[in-house]
Amino acid sequence: MTFPDRAAIETMDAQDPLGHLRDAFLLSPDEVYLDGNSLGVPTRAAQDELMRAARDEWAGQLIRSWNSAGWFDLPVELGDRIGGLIGAAAGQVVVADTTSINVYKALHAAMRLRPGRKAIIAESNSFPTDLYIAEGVVSTLPGARLRLGGVDGATIEEMLDGDVAAVLVNHVDYRTGALRDMAALTARIHAAGAVAVWDLCHSAGALPVGLDAAGADFAVGCTYKYLNGGPGSPAFIYVAQRHQGQVSQPLSGWWGHARPFAFETGYEGDTGIRRFQCGTQPILSMRALKGALQIWDGVDLHQLRAKSIALTDLFIRLVEGRCAGLGLTLETPREGARRGSQVALHHDHAWPVMQALIARGVIGDFRAPSTLRFGFTPLYLRYADVLRAVDVLEDILRSESWRDPRFAVKAAVT
Amino acid sequence: MTFPDRAAIETMDAQDPLGHLRDAFLLSPDEVYLDGNSLGVPTRAAQDELMRAARDEWAGQLIRSWNSAGWFDLPVELGDRIGGLIGAAAGQVVVADTTSINVYKALHAAMRLRPGRKAIIAESNSFPTDLYIAEGVVSTLPGARLRLGGVDGATIEEMLDGDVAAVLVNHVDYRTGALRDMAALTARIHAAGAVAVWDLCHSAGALPVGLDAAGADFAVGCTYKYLNGGPGSPAFIYVAQRHQGQVSQPLSGWWGHARPFAFETGYEGDTGIRRFQCGTQPILSMRALKGALQIWDGVDLHQLRAKSIALTDLFIRLVEGRCAGLGLTLETPREGARRGSQVALHHDHAWPVMQALIARGVIGDFRAPSTLRFGFTPLYLRYADVLRAVDVLEDILRSESWRDPRFAVKAAVT
Repeated sequence: MTFPDRAAIETMDAQDPLGHLRDAFLLSPDEVYLDGNSLGVPTRAAQDELMRAARDEWAGQLIRSWNSAGWFDLPVELGDRIGGLIGAAAGQVVVADTTSINVYKALHAAMRLRPGRKAIIAESNSFPTDLYIAEGVVSTLPGARLRLGGVDGATIEEMLDGDVAAVLVNHVDYRTGALRDMAALTARIHAAGAVAVWDLCHSAGALPVGLDAAGADFAVGCTYKYLNGGPGSPAFIYVAQRHQGQVSQPLSGWWGHARPFAFETGYEGDTGIRRFQCGTQPILSMRALKGALQIWDGVDLHQLRAKSIALTDLFIRLVEGRCAGLGLTLETPREGARRGSQVALHHDHAWPVMQALIARGVIGDFRAPSTLRFGFTPLYLRYADVLRAVDVLEDILRSESWRDPRFAVKAAVT
Repeated sequence: MTFPDRAAIETMDAQDPLGHLRDAFLLSPDEVYLDGNSLGVPTRAAQDELMRAARDEWAGQLIRSWNSAGWFDLPVELGDRIGGLIGAAAGQVVVADTTSINVYKALHAAMRLRPGRKAIIAESNSFPTDLYIAEGVVSTLPGARLRLGGVDGATIEEMLDGDVAAVLVNHVDYRTGALRDMAALTARIHAAGAVAVWDLCHSAGALPVGLDAAGADFAVGCTYKYLNGGPGSPAFIYVAQRHQGQVSQPLSGWWGHARPFAFETGYEGDTGIRRFQCGTQPILSMRALKGALQIWDGVDLHQLRAKSIALTDLFIRLVEGRCAGLGLTLETPREGARRGSQVALHHDHAWPVMQALIARGVIGDFRAPSTLRFGFTPLYLRYADVLRAVDVLEDILRSESWRDPRFAVKAAVT
């Protein structure tokens, strides 16, 4: 066997330059949480900011907090903060609404940038809401159509032609964890005369994202996975500086107006990123996100990426070494540079196996039809957690304890 | 003088059947808060629910809380709860997104119900985001147009013709407080073959709203004013049962899918109210709203309405009796049955007068160009608060203390 032993793993943790960050998170010592790619873990700072917002600001100052606590500018303040994590210079990111709604804004804006073209391309293996929203956009535009590319048919690259206005593409596949080359694909999309809309849900906060460097046009992403903003915390949208001032989107609510408090009868969109806001944002959720983002002060994203690859490499090596012949197949690219911060394993009985893992304190998630999905958040996970997860997984598979009938029951929400 | 004296006002408070509710709110004893129509006051229950959600659910159970804490069903659970306050039977209201976004959904759905018609009518004196969103809807529909009715031109009733698909109308005018007769106007709109979309931002929680009884088609509203849900708490949308299952809207995100966790490639909308959801909601803000709604258990909405009219009547009588000749003009209907739960007063120097009031602990707000706006939330205001507000207002106007230069400075957000 060539995989590291417990002592070697302890050394890896001891030498981890990000190891000290774990103490900022409210993590149970009894669990290994490998579901930060679904819902991130709160920091103490996030909870403290939330309390401050609820008590000192809402209860304490009431309506005055819109000014005195800076509520109104939170979307652009937090947008710039996230911009720093995804390679976007200031003034190009705003936090608002949901990923789904931001996809809607971005696709409409993209279609308006290419008025003679009628097609949106998306990947059939996208997280479904991207496809559903693309259908919604198409439903409002006569003659427009959605073309699906991906695993079972032509690739996106093969589908690019003169009718394509916009391409909606995932930076990291939500199921397999496969990572796209953003710069290369954006260049191909531009060469075909189309506009690139990147979904960063599974890459923002998981690895360095170079939106400006790649020449991306639009991007969207959520803040409740690797950014740890809290359940359903508001999403973000990126609009490249070169498109601002000339591009519009139809969710033209008052927060996107050039002068929202002039209460004018007609809409005049802001010339900057604020135009991609719509209505009043959920400030309490936004303030938890603000607290959550404090952890990134001083984090080196290249150290983050190195640790992410090391964690997932270790997991793959340990699983393949110790669980060989136990029915698992790797669905994630083996080459570290080609994956995000997660590992997906196929197992014919993935549902009960995952329930058995959760019952033993190893929290991952299930993705239909038969994927065990494990997310590795470098901010708070230890190499020792990886070892423990594999210890438990091996035991469950060898003992077949997952066959216990209580693990067969499916929950309403997965 | 014919207005009640202090003793009479104390008797009114002593006999107030809703007087005990005030203790549930986190109100400063040093202030009179007349801005609950902009941002409501938190209850202890709202803050407690928020803490529980952040600590026990997010930190404590992490991803499992989507099932175990009922997060996924909160939008319909709270929708039904609000439905009880606006005359909507269960299954017709969902809490999601913002008022602006819900106006967008409702107007698109309304246009789809009347495919041969091209016009949306809205009122020029609407809260501007309604008009801006109507512009946005029109911008996506070839041939569609927005026609503005209202104070300076033809009334909505006069504009109804065979080209009108949808009418977007305010139940209570956000500035003047004028209250529309919902049943009568809905009947007129239906007689013209159009669909009625009601904006309840200034009536939900302020007075009984009979959506089902009026035969309304769609309605939207916010939850952070008279429902006290917290800054930017998610909005709601009502879709009459008879339209559900046959009407669609283009913000077709995964939360509106018939089977959101089947992760299907194509969109198939839910046949109920869930179709008017889109993406993942801000759960922390949603849980504060859940706590806020507890106060309504056992509140008789007719007692609420009676107190609202009594508070605003008292305010108008005291102001007109004691501030006569001091430059104030009533902008709100004098007849109680024709107004919501607010009073608007014109003053040529409304901005500094309001700043002087706020500095003295009477919190109302300013609306351009020259309106002093005072909201009266019957759940937590006392008749003695009305008296104190008028005492301070009279003193500021008689002494002209509002001329202090520090009151001339306009804040960024009003």
